[in-house]
Amino acid sequence: MALDNERKSEIEESRKQTETTFRVSSPGIEEILYKPLEVLDHGFIRVIDYMGNDNSVVQAARVSYGKGTKKTSEDRGLIQYLMRHHHTTPFEMCDIKLHVKLPIFIARQWIRHRTASVNEYSARYSILDNEFYIPKREQLAAQSKSNRQGRDEILDDENAKRVFDLLIEDSKSTYDHYREMLNEDENGNIIDENKTGLARELARMNLTLNYYTEWYWKTNLHNLLNFIRLRADSHAQYEIRVYAEIMQDIVKKWVPLTYEAFMEYRVNSVGVSGKGVKALKELIKGDKVTQETSGMSKREWAEFSEMFELQKILTNA
Amino acid sequence: MALDNERKSEIEESRKQTETTFRVSSPGIEEILYKPLEVLDHGFIRVIDYMGNDNSVVQAARVSYGKGTKKTSEDRGLIQYLMRHHHTTPFEMCDIKLHVKLPIFIARQWIRHRTASVNEYSARYSILDNEFYIPKREQLAAQSKSNRQGRDEILDDENAKRVFDLLIEDSKSTYDHYREMLNEDENGNIIDENKTGLARELARMNLTLNYYTEWYWKTNLHNLLNFIRLRADSHAQYEIRVYAEIMQDIVKKWVPLTYEAFMEYRVNSVGVSGKGVKALKELIKGDKVTQETSGMSKREWAEFSEMFELQKILTNA
Amino acid sequence: MALDNERKSEIEESRKQTETTFRVSSPGIEEILYKPLEVLDHGFIRVIDYMGNDNSVVQAARVSYGKGTKKTSEDRGLIQYLMRHHHTTPFEMCDIKLHVKLPIFIARQWIRHRTASVNEYSARYSILDNEFYIPKREQLAAQSKSNRQGRDEILDDENAKRVFDLLIEDSKSTYDHYREMLNEDENGNIIDENKTGLARELARMNLTLNYYTEWYWKTNLHNLLNFIRLRADSHAQYEIRVYAEIMQDIVKKWVPLTYEAFMEYRVNSVGVSGKGVKALKELIKGDKVTQETSGMSKREWAEFSEMFELQKILTNA
Amino acid sequence: MALDNERKSEIEESRKQTETTFRVSSPGIEEILYKPLEVLDHGFIRVIDYMGNDNSVVQAARVSYGKGTKKTSEDRGLIQYLMRHHHTTPFEMCDIKLHVKLPIFIARQWIRHRTASVNEYSARYSILDNEFYIPKREQLAAQSKSNRQGRDEILDDENAKRVFDLLIEDSKSTYDHYREMLNEDENGNIIDENKTGLARELARMNLTLNYYTEWYWKTNLHNLLNFIRLRADSHAQYEIRVYAEIMQDIVKKWVPLTYEAFMEYRVNSVGVSGKGVKALKELIKGDKVTQETSGMSKREWAEFSEMFELQKILTNA
Repeated sequence: MALDNERKSEIEESRKQTETTFRVSSPGIEEILYKPLEVLDHGFIRVIDYMGNDNSVVQAARVSYGKGTKKTSEDRGLIQYLMRHHHTTPFEMCDIKLHVKLPIFIARQWIRHRTASVNEYSARYSILDNEFYIPKREQLAAQSKSNRQGRDEILDDENAKRVFDLLIEDSKSTYDHYREMLNEDENGNIIDENKTGLARELARMNLTLNYYTEWYWKTNLHNLLNFIRLRADSHAQYEIRVYAEIMQDIVKKWVPLTYEAFMEYRVNSVGVSGKGVKALKELIKGDKVTQETSGMSKREWAEFSEMFELQKILTNA
Repeated sequence: MALDNERKSEIEESRKQTETTFRVSSPGIEEILYKPLEVLDHGFIRVIDYMGNDNSVVQAARVSYGKGTKKTSEDRGLIQYLMRHHHTTPFEMCDIKLHVKLPIFIARQWIRHRTASVNEYSARYSILDNEFYIPKREQLAAQSKSNRQGRDEILDDENAKRVFDLLIEDSKSTYDHYREMLNEDENGNIIDENKTGLARELARMNLTLNYYTEWYWKTNLHNLLNFIRLRADSHAQYEIRVYAEIMQDIVKKWVPLTYEAFMEYRVNSVGVSGKGVKALKELIKGDKVTQETSGMSKREWAEFSEMFELQKILTNA
Repeated sequence: MALDNERKSEIEESRKQTETTFRVSSPGIEEILYKPLEVLDHGFIRVIDYMGNDNSVVQAARVSYGKGTKKTSEDRGLIQYLMRHHHTTPFEMCDIKLHVKLPIFIARQWIRHRTASVNEYSARYSILDNEFYIPKREQLAAQSKSNRQGRDEILDDENAKRVFDLLIEDSKSTYDHYREMLNEDENGNIIDENKTGLARELARMNLTLNYYTEWYWKTNLHNLLNFIRLRADSHAQYEIRVYAEIMQDIVKKWVPLTYEAFMEYRVNSVGVSGKGVKALKELIKGDKVTQETSGMSKREWAEFSEMFELQKILTNA
Repeated sequence: MALDNERKSEIEESRKQTETTFRVSSPGIEEILYKPLEVLDHGFIRVIDYMGNDNSVVQAARVSYGKGTKKTSEDRGLIQYLMRHHHTTPFEMCDIKLHVKLPIFIARQWIRHRTASVNEYSARYSILDNEFYIPKREQLAAQSKSNRQGRDEILDDENAKRVFDLLIEDSKSTYDHYREMLNEDENGNIIDENKTGLARELARMNLTLNYYTEWYWKTNLHNLLNFIRLRADSHAQYEIRVYAEIMQDIVKKWVPLTYEAFMEYRVNSVGVSGKGVKALKELIKGDKVTQETSGMSKREWAEFSEMFELQKILTNA
C-alpha cells in the first residue's frame, strides 16, 4: 500500500504514545521505531516491535535472576565468546518484528528463511496498489559470464533504455489489465457497469514479479543475523542486499555489543578448509604453495588466494 | 521446464531400474513413483522418493525392535487412536519427496508451509520456459460478494473472453520481452549480436505470476496431512486445491490405514466450540436452540447450523 | 538454584527500574513481571520479558500501519474469527520469555515442544543445588488400571509413608554422594584434601530425576497456547499440568481477548469425527443411536458419549 | 529394553526380508540396516530406515528429471561446491531414522537438537529395565581446572574405586526402590499382595540420570551433519561423542561423497575472525605478529595460535 498521507499520519501517531514498562529496552532502536526506512524505489523496513537487548543475551547465557550485569566489559567478552564458539541459543532470546514492503521476486527469496513468522498482505482478499520496482540506471547490469547467477558490467545507454522501456511498459499494462479484469478502478469504483469483475485470487496472476507486496515479519536475533550474513553478502542479489544492509544498521542500533561480535566473527571472518589450513601453515613457514601442491581444485584455489590476497602478498615479497 | 521427450525418457529410464533393499516399502506408491501426475494445464506432481509405510507409524509409536506387527487389525486400531488423540509424532516418521511444477502465485501460497525442505529451479541461474497457467473456462469466476477471498458464479462468455484475451496476451508479451531483455531466444541463440543481455536475476521480474516454476519438496507424513487438510479444503483456492487432491490420492496409495484415519478424524471431522457443545447437548435433549440462546455470533451460528444441517433436520422434525 | 535472599533482592531490584518505550505494552502482565509464581515445592515460573499484546494480533492480521484499532469490540470479533478458523500466524506475532524452575523428569516432557528457544542451567559447568521434588500427600496415587499412563486412587497412609521414605532417602543419599564424588561441599569448600573431585559432567549422572533444573524458555503466543492446551489438559501428568495452569493465568493477564477466544475455541471445544457428526445429526433428529449403529469402536463410543454426556441426557429423557 | 534373545531374533528376522523398489538405495548402509551398533556399556544405534543417497543431493540441487548423473567426478565436484558455500538445502533431501539406546543425561543433551522427529519409550506408560551406565575406568576423570565444563587427568585407583562404589550402589538401590514403589518385580509379578503400586509416572522420578532410555529419532542429512560436527568434536562430552562417532561412520557408508566434503569443509576446517585474517596475511608476508599487535584477547590468541600451530612453526623458523 502506498505510503500516503493517511498512513504517514498513522505512523506519526504511533510515535506520540509512550508506555512505562518494567521490561528492558534499547535506546538506539527506540529512536527509529515505526519509522519507514526507505529501500529501493517504493520499499521500506519499519521496526514495529522488539524484545530484549544485549543484556538479554548475557542474562540467558547465565540463566540469571536479575536483569543482567552492569559491567559492559564483561558482557562484551561473554558475547564475543558466545559468537566465536557458535553458542547460538542466547541470541535466540531477543526478537524483532518488522513491517517490510518489497518487490514480489525479492519476497520469494526472503521467504526461504523458514524460521520466522509472517503475515503477508493478501491479494486474494485485497487489491494490490499500482507500485512496481524499476531498477536505478546503475543497477541495470549484464548477465555475468563467469558466474551464472551474477551480474557483470552496467548496460550502455542504448541497452538500458530498451530495458527500461520494456519493464515500465509491461508493468503498467499488466496493472491496467489487472484493474480491467477486476472491473474496479484505483478509487474503488466499478469501471464498467455491464461487466463482471474477475475474482481477486485469479486476477492477481496477471501482475509482474516486480510488483510490491508487504508483510509483517518476525524473527529472533540469531536468525536475523543469519539472514544478514547471507543476504548482505556481496554474492547476494543487489535488490535483497539493500534490505539486509538496513537490517544490519538496525542491529547496530539495537544490540551494539552483539553487532560488534557479529562483524568480527561472522561478516569479516572466513572459513578455511582442511587443505586451506595445511596451506596456511606452509605459507607461514615461508614454504612455496601452489594450487597443485595444495590439493585444491582450481576454483577453490582461486577463492583461497583471494581470501588471503596471496597474489598481492607473494608478488610484493 | 517443459516435459519434452528428453525429460519423458529420463523419467521412463528411472522406472527401468529396480533395487533390492532391506527397507520397508509400499506397493501402492511404487506403482506411481517418478510418473508425472498432471495438474492444471502444465503442472505436475512426481513422487521422487519416500521413506516408511503404515507399519513405520506403528513401529515408532511402540519403539519396537522389529519391522512392525503383522496383524493389520491391531495396527489399524492403533493408527486410529493416534490420529484421534493428536499423537502426531509417529506420523513424522514417514517422509515423502515430490517434484512439483506449479504457477508462481500458487508456489507463493505453498511455501507458507514452513516445515518442509525445498530446492527450487533458480531463475537467477537459469532461464524459465515459456509456460504459463491459463484457467479453464469453468474456473473463470467472479469475485465473491459474501466472502472477500472467494469466488462466485462463473463469468459469462463475453466477460470470459475478455479475461482470456488479456491473460494470454500479457503472458505472451511479457515473456517475449523477457527473452528480448536476455537477448537469448528459446534455442539458446543470441537474438541480436549488437545488444547486451540483461542479467537473468533482473530480467525475471518482467514475468507474470502465472508462469510456472518447479521444485523438489520434501516433508514428513504429519506435515503432508496438515497441508492436505488445509489446501484440499473447499475454502482453499482452486488452483492449489487440485494439487492437494492429488496428494491426497498419493497418501491413499502410500499409507492406506493412515489415510482412512485421516479422512475420519481430520477431513470429515469438525471442531465444536464450548458454546457449540452446550447447544448440541440441548438439541439432543430436544430443547429449542436459537442463535440468541446459544450465545454465538450470527456468523458462528450460521457455520454451526451448516455443520449439523440444523435447518434441514429441524424443519423436517 | 535456591531462591535465597540474594536472588530475591535481585528480582526486587528488577522491579524498581522502569523504562519509557514507544512499544505497545500490556498492563496485566506488567504487574507480575519478574515475580516468581510458585509451582510444586521448589519450582517457579517468572515472566522475564514479552512482546506485543492483543492489538499486535489484530495489527498483524491486517498488516496495518498504526498500532492497531481502538474499538475493542471489533478486535474481539477478529481475534475470535482467527482462533475459530485456525488462522494461527497472527498469534505468532507475540512472544514471551519465561524463567522456569522444574523437576528434571518434567523438563524432559516440556522440551518435547520443539518450537521454543531454551537456555538451561548447565550441570556440566555448575553444581546443582540440593533441591528435589517430593509430591504432596494427595498426589501419591496408584497406577491406573484402565489407563496405562494415568493415576488412580490415592495411596493409603501406610503405602504413602513407604513411598515418602524411599523417595526422600534416595534423593538425599544420591545428592550426598554427588557432593562426595565432586569432593566439594555446599559452601564450595573441598571436602577432603586428599581426594580428587570427579568431573561435574560425570558426577551429575548420580542424581535422581526429581532434582530441580531451571531454564530460560521463550516461545510465541501460538506455540504457548498449544503447550497449554496439551499440558493443562486433564490427561497430562499433574506435575506439568500445574505449570501449564500458571501459564494459562499469565495468558489471561497478558492478552485477555486472545485468552477468551482460546478458552472457547480450544479448551472448551471438542473435535468430532465423521462418524460422530453423523451420530449427532441422528440424535438431534431424535433417532436412537448406539455404539453398533454409529460404527464407532467401543473406546471411541465411550469417549463420544462422555463428550456429550449422552448417558445423562438420554436417561433423563 | 535389554537386547535379549527375543529382540535379537526380531532384528535378525528384519534382515531376512528384502523388497524390490524403484527408489535409489545405498549399498553401504544396507549392510548395517537394523543391526545394533554398540555404544557405551548398554547403548546402541540401529539404522531403521533411510531415504536417498549422494545422487539425491545432486538431483535436488539440479531439480533434475532423472535419478541423477552417472559421472561420479562431476557429482563429487558439485557436492564439494555445495558444502563449501553452505548451500545446505540439497542435503536436507536425504533422511535417516535411527533407533538409539542411551543414558538419560545424554538424551537430555541430544534432544536440544530440535530439528528432528522423536518417539521415546515412555516411562509413564511402561517400566524401565534395570540398565544403567557406568563409565569405563579410563573415563573417570577429574574436573578440569582450566575449562569449567571439561575433564582433566584420570582418577587414581583409590578415587576411582570410591566413585565406582557410589555410582553402582546408588544405581542399584534406586532401581530396587523404583520396583518396590511400583510393587512389581522384573518378571512382572506383584511383589507384595498387601501393598499398592505407585503410578509409573511418579515412581520413575526415583531413577538416577544414568539409566538408559531409548527412542526412534529421525532427521535429515543436513541436520545430522550439524549434530555430528558439534558432538563428535573434542569439546563435546565423551558419552555423547561416542554416539556421534558411530553416526559419522554411518554417514561414510551411506553417502561417501558427502562424507568426504563434510570432513574437508566442516570437520577439518576452521573459522578465522576478521582479526585472524589480518594476522594471517601479515604472517604470510613474514611479519611478526603478537597477541598485542593482533588486537585479539589472550584467550582468542591462544585459540588462534593453536589452530595454526604458530608456536611450533615460528620456533622452528
